[in-house]
Order: sequence, then C-alpha cells, then structure tokens
Amino acid sequence: MAAAHRVVIIGGGFGGLTAALRLRRAPVEVTLIDRRNYHLFQPLLYQVATGVLSPANIASPLREILKRQKNTRVLLAEATHVDAARRRVILSDGTVEYDTLIVSAGVRHQYFGHPEWERFAPGLKTIEDATHMRRRILLAFEAAEREPHPGKRLAWMTFVIVGAGPTGAELAGALGEIANDTLRHDFRSINPSEARILLLEGAGRVLPLYPPRLSAAARHMLEGLGVTVRTDCFVTGIEGHGVTIRQGGRTEEIPARTVLWAAGVLGSPLGRDLAEAAGARVDGAGRVVVGPDLTVPGHPEIFVIGDLANFSHHQGKPLPGVAQAAIQEARYVARIIADRLRGHKTPLFRWVDKGNLAAIGRAAAVADLNWVRMSGMPAWLLWLVVHLLYIVEFRNRVLVLLQWGWLYLTYDRSSRLITGENPLPLDL
Amino acid sequence: MAAAHRVVIIGGGFGGLTAALRLRRAPVEVTLIDRRNYHLFQPLLYQVATGVLSPANIASPLREILKRQKNTRVLLAEATHVDAARRRVILSDGTVEYDTLIVSAGVRHQYFGHPEWERFAPGLKTIEDATHMRRRILLAFEAAEREPHPGKRLAWMTFVIVGAGPTGAELAGALGEIANDTLRHDFRSINPSEARILLLEGAGRVLPLYPPRLSAAARHMLEGLGVTVRTDCFVTGIEGHGVTIRQGGRTEEIPARTVLWAAGVLGSPLGRDLAEAAGARVDGAGRVVVGPDLTVPGHPEIFVIGDLANFSHHQGKPLPGVAQAAIQEARYVARIIADRLRGHKTPLFRWVDKGNLAAIGRAAAVADLNWVRMSGMPAWLLWLVVHLLYIVEFRNRVLVLLQWGWLYLTYDRSSRLITGENPLPLDL
Repeated sequence: MAAAHRVVIIGGGFGGLTAALRLRRAPVEVTLIDRRNYHLFQPLLYQVATGVLSPANIASPLREILKRQKNTRVLLAEATHVDAARRRVILSDGTVEYDTLIVSAGVRHQYFGHPEWERFAPGLKTIEDATHMRRRILLAFEAAEREPHPGKRLAWMTFVIVGAGPTGAELAGALGEIANDTLRHDFRSINPSEARILLLEGAGRVLPLYPPRLSAAARHMLEGLGVTVRTDCFVTGIEGHGVTIRQGGRTEEIPARTVLWAAGVLGSPLGRDLAEAAGARVDGAGRVVVGPDLTVPGHPEIFVIGDLANFSHHQGKPLPGVAQAAIQEARYVARIIADRLRGHKTPLFRWVDKGNLAAIGRAAAVADLNWVRMSGMPAWLLWLVVHLLYIVEFRNRVLVLLQWGWLYLTYDRSSRLITGENPLPLDL
Repeated sequence: MAAAHRVVIIGGGFGGLTAALRLRRAPVEVTLIDRRNYHLFQPLLYQVATGVLSPANIASPLREILKRQKNTRVLLAEATHVDAARRRVILSDGTVEYDTLIVSAGVRHQYFGHPEWERFAPGLKTIEDATHMRRRILLAFEAAEREPHPGKRLAWMTFVIVGAGPTGAELAGALGEIANDTLRHDFRSINPSEARILLLEGAGRVLPLYPPRLSAAARHMLEGLGVTVRTDCFVTGIEGHGVTIRQGGRTEEIPARTVLWAAGVLGSPLGRDLAEAAGARVDGAGRVVVGPDLTVPGHPEIFVIGDLANFSHHQGKPLPGVAQAAIQEARYVARIIADRLRGHKTPLFRWVDKGNLAAIGRAAAVADLNWVRMSGMPAWLLWLVVHLLYIVEFRNRVLVLLQWGWLYLTYDRSSRLITGENPLPLDL
C-alpha cells in the first residue's frame, strides 16, 4: 500500500480549519499547524475588547474540534519557512514534509510605515490584542476618575479610532454604548457620557466598501451613540498624548490618551517567504497573488487561501479579507485535492458574494445582501443569527447568546476586567 | 453639618467587599481601594486554571457591584503604607485620609524561604496565576506530543502538585479528569491517560484540616482519578526538570516539567507595614494578630479582616483562610462601625464555623458541616449549590451553572486556551 497523500495546512483560522474539516473523508493524512491551540472567531473579537464576551467564548481548541477526525493531527508549532524545492515546512523546532500545502496564515495589522505607532495605538487581531485593548479602554476611565486637571482629564476621556471599516465602526459603536450606558453610574468624579469618541476615516465615508446608502445609515447610527465621525481625514502622527490629523489641507492635534487602530493589514511573513521560496508575487499588503485555482503559479501543490491570498475576482480587485471568502476558498481547495487524487478535473474557483454585515451598537446594524439592503433592527437580528451560526462550538453559541441577551436587557458588560501585568500607577 | 465619618477599606475580596456592602445604610463615606477593578471569587480559580471557566465568570467589576451605593466610591489604586499616626493611607500615586480603616489585603502564596521555586512552581491566587497555570498544564501535553524521547516525554507528562489542602486536592482531581477524559481523543502520539499526577503533602493525610474519615474518602476519590497521593512527604528542591522530595528519611528525585504550588501562604506586605506603623504583631505567615474586636491593639480605628487577620478563636488557633471567615468578620466590623457612631456597644466577635467543602473531580466532594459529614454525590451537590449562591452576579451564576452542566455531560473543558506571550518553541 502506498503511503497516504500528505496535506499540510498552515493556520487554523476560517480557511485552514475549514480545509481540514472538508478533507475528513479524503484519502489523505492532514497535519494542521498553528501557533495557537485554538480557532479564533475573529469577527467577534471587538466584543472581547469591549467587555461583552470572554476570550474562551470565541475561541475553540483545535484538538477539540478535530479530536474524532482520525486522518488529521494538530501540531502546535510556528511555521517559519516553506522549502518549496524539497516540499517541506520548516518549523521553529522541526520540519514537516508535504505533498500538498495549504497556506492560510492570515494577516496582522500594519501602520503604513509607522511601526512606532503600534505602542500607542493597539490593533485587534488576537486574543492578547483584545484583552490589551480592553485594559486600555477601562484604564482610561479609571485614570480620568483620578485626574483633577480638566485638560488632562479630557485627554483621558478622548478615544480615537483610526479606520472606519467594519472593525472600526463596531468598536466605535461599542465605545459609545460603554460611555453612555454601561458605565453610567460607575464613577463619582467623572461623567462617562462626556467621553469624546472620534472615528477617523481616510475615505469619504464610513464602511467605504458598503453601498453609500448603508454608509450613511451607519454614520447616522454612530452619531446617535455620540460618536464623532470624521471622513477624508488622515492620521499623520500618533504619540502617547494624542494624534495629529490632516483634513482638508489643515493639520490638527487632538489630545487623546487612547488610540485604537482599525486601519491597514499586512500579510503574514510567510507570504513574503513564499515569494522568495516559490517565486510567488506579493501585493502591496503582503498578500500572495494566486492563480484561478488558488495555487501559487508554477506550484500546483501550494495553495494560498484566506486573508493572505490575493485572488482577483473582478477587474483585478482582490477578494475582501472576510470569513466567507476564506471558507469558500477552503472548500474549493479540499475539493480540488480530492479530485486530483481521483484523477478528476475541477472547475476554476468561483467566488459567491453573500453580502456584508456590520453591527453598530445596540439593536443596530447594516446589511448588504446584494439582492437586498437593510439597516437597523432587522439587519441586527440577521447579524446576530449569522454570527451565532458560524461560531464553532454549540456550548459557545449558548454562552454568547446568553451574554448578548444579558447585555441587551441590562447594558452591563460584565467581562470588563483589567488583566495583565500590574496596571498601577495609572499612567502609560 | 459635620463631615461624614470616612471609612477606608483596602482590598475588594470577600472581606472588603462585604464590609463595603454592609455599610450601605451607615452614615459614613466609604472608599474601597483595590489594585484590581474586580472582585474575584477565589474558590473557583482552580476551574479557570483547568479550563472549565473563563476569568470573567468568577470576577465581577467592583464598580458594577457598587454602582448604586451612593455613599461608596471605588479607587483603583495600590495601597503601599498606612500612616497610622496621621490616619491616612499612602497610595503609589496619592493619599487617602480615614477615620476608620479596614485592612483586608489578603495573602499571596509563599515558598517557605525558597523564592527561586516560584519560577518553576506557579501558585494560584490571581487571574494571571490561573491563566499561567492553565498554559503550563496545556503546553506540557503539547510538548509531550512532540517529544520522541520516552524519558523526556514522561517528564512532560508528570504533574506534581505540592500541598493537599483544598486547592491542591481540587487541582489534582481536575488534572485527573483532564488526563483521563477531556483529552482522551485529542492527541495522536501520546495517551493522556498515561499522565502521572502526584499530590504531595507534608502532613499525614490529604485535607489535613478535615476530619480523618473525610480525608480518607478524598484520598480514595483522588486515587480513583489516577492521582498518586504521597503524604508525610516534603519537597526539598524544585527545578525546571523535576522536584526532589524527602519521605521517611529517603530522598528521591522525580523528573517532572510541571509543578503546581498549593502549599503555604504569606500575608500581604501591608501586614508587616502595620506592624511597623501601628505596633501590630504579625505571625509567622505574615498575618496581623488582632484583638477580640478585630482591631489592631492600641488602634481601635484600624480593623484587619480576612486572610490577612490572625484571630485566635480556640486555644490560640487562628481562623482558617476561607471566604466564610472573611465574610463574618466583615459583617461584624460593619456593625461595630455603625454601633460606634450611634454610641452603642457591640459584643465581641464570635466565629460560627459553618463547615468545609472541597470538590474532588466529577460528582465527588467531601463536606464537613460539623453536625453532619458526607462525601460523594450528595457532598458534590451541596458544594455546587453553595458555590453558586456565593457568586456575586446573577449573570455569572447562570454562565457557571451552564458550563458545569456542559462539563458534566461532555467532559469537555472548552476554556482550555493557551494565551499569553508566544509559547513557542515548546520549552521553558
């Protein structure tokens, strides 16, 4: 008997995990490599950052999900390099050989050539990012409560969110709720509803990838939550005490102790590694340009999927970095692998855009399903159902639904813990 | 109108929080100082360390609990020193004046003169401790899965718990369940049920403060979960690769990569500070010896309660460091403060021992209620009800009950996340 075909998957996000699950019945040996021992439901990460959910509610151990899938093993390891010539993945502590490789290593946030901003403006991609952001938000209110000087207090109570894509808009909406409702009775010296929440966007409108009508609806909802939206506005500097912005040719300094980053992303270093090792081309955001079958040109045995892939679907425009794209790509790759082993031909990958959803605070959202667009409560209910369905574990679905119900009824965000190394004294 | 009597409370644990809540209707101004922004339900911390519960399930924001209590403010601050002469508390970033002071700053674990052991044998007092311990336990199995050398693999699969009080016994029981049930199908190279779990105790039996019959029952339950119990056994060395023990005059080295500390405790540094500043006496464990009314001798305006207090209740024996002691003391102190303001006399503090409970794994526990003793399922149900009742927030009661039900039905511990700084490569 010949040895089974070895499929190695790098990354246990939506793309990598879906591919592994879809290869369940294929005559292959699957190895799923991840630096983390869990699959993370990134679309709800902002709810950890804003104290609604716990990390474990949106993270499921990969071993738990795959425990009964006998043809699959999970490797807690860091893939540092692809040796395309010898068909093996180099780990920080070993190597793994493959016959077919699926790279689904995702993206991190980037600061457009200003890595020094990261210290002052944390982004939101990992659980550690989320608990750090939560800590920063909560400590800002604590510091304001202790600060006697009015100007300094205002800087502590000013929150700047850079980038008004879905993550930025959802963060801003949640901050508006925290300031107006959750913390309403919590303090004695400050009034949290006096917090200034600024949402900055370089494009001409919030949610720039949505239809203009929904952008307008989202902006209206955000303003209703006390968020100040500034579009056509560019950040030119970020420091510990504020941001510098340029808008309409004018430069302005905004004192703010809390700046949250929801702007650009940059592909995993493995993308650039593939460029060198397998002759792949990467785009400006570090994403690997893949062919119509999602392989790296010249390497039919290497697939790149998910946020790390640049698949041109329409006039050279890459697919958006969303879960549904990664999932569709993963299903396609699992199918092509099985087809090849059976000697079947597979049609080229075709992307089906199911639409977009973003939740803006309490019972408010925007939804663009292509055939219908909506905002407000109906969009929010749809958002809720879709997100619940895509959460992996049944247990977590129940826990998340319960906590959403609690939030809805009480405005209480009970997971607002300041954790991590000692936060005191209250200064950065 | 005279200024209100100022009560300052240091520590938001069971003692400090209960005192604040009990002073709700007293004509006083309460300031509750804590380094953390939440009250922590420490008795369930081992369930965070073993992947059942999330930190937020057992932690409630102090501001949330006290938001409607108008006479009370919460200060996120670190109290470093009590200036008893000028009646003020020195913070790391300010001062607070008091008329009455309640010190309820708790204890940390101690290593009996071997602080160098802490690095290798983490203890369990804070949320950070619990997520660190969880990480250590889970990484050990991951490392074993990757380790080809049988001897090294065995060291990764050996877990030593030092101290068989309630925390140690509960940890050992949970580890037994993890190895035998939770992880049963998770790995491909190792069989988790081959893990060695050693529970070491210096006294002659586990749960040495319980009646001997319950100690025997607990030992029987632990052994049923695959735990090896060694009593009259002293740890003389802890390093990254194992522990050295002395038992019956013989010295032995046990290769083990995971050592968990559940032995001694040491009072907060504020206890020793009170000794210097107010002439208090501290015992060998750093606890402040208090008078029959829980005050520091010579300072009727300074109370010490909770784990930090040494109150002799019977032939010089101090009260145990348990929640019910802290709660009873706090109620007494709140009463004495109100009585004094009304010019009433308060009888001396009287401790009512309601008994002890410890859960040893699945549907198994021991309970000593003084008038009745039980073990097994009835004790476990009692343990469950008592713990649920003492969790502060309703939301958390529901979430905890749900997760216990899930654990009971499936053996799944879904909160088994490895979080924190990058864990790879897999070595210490």
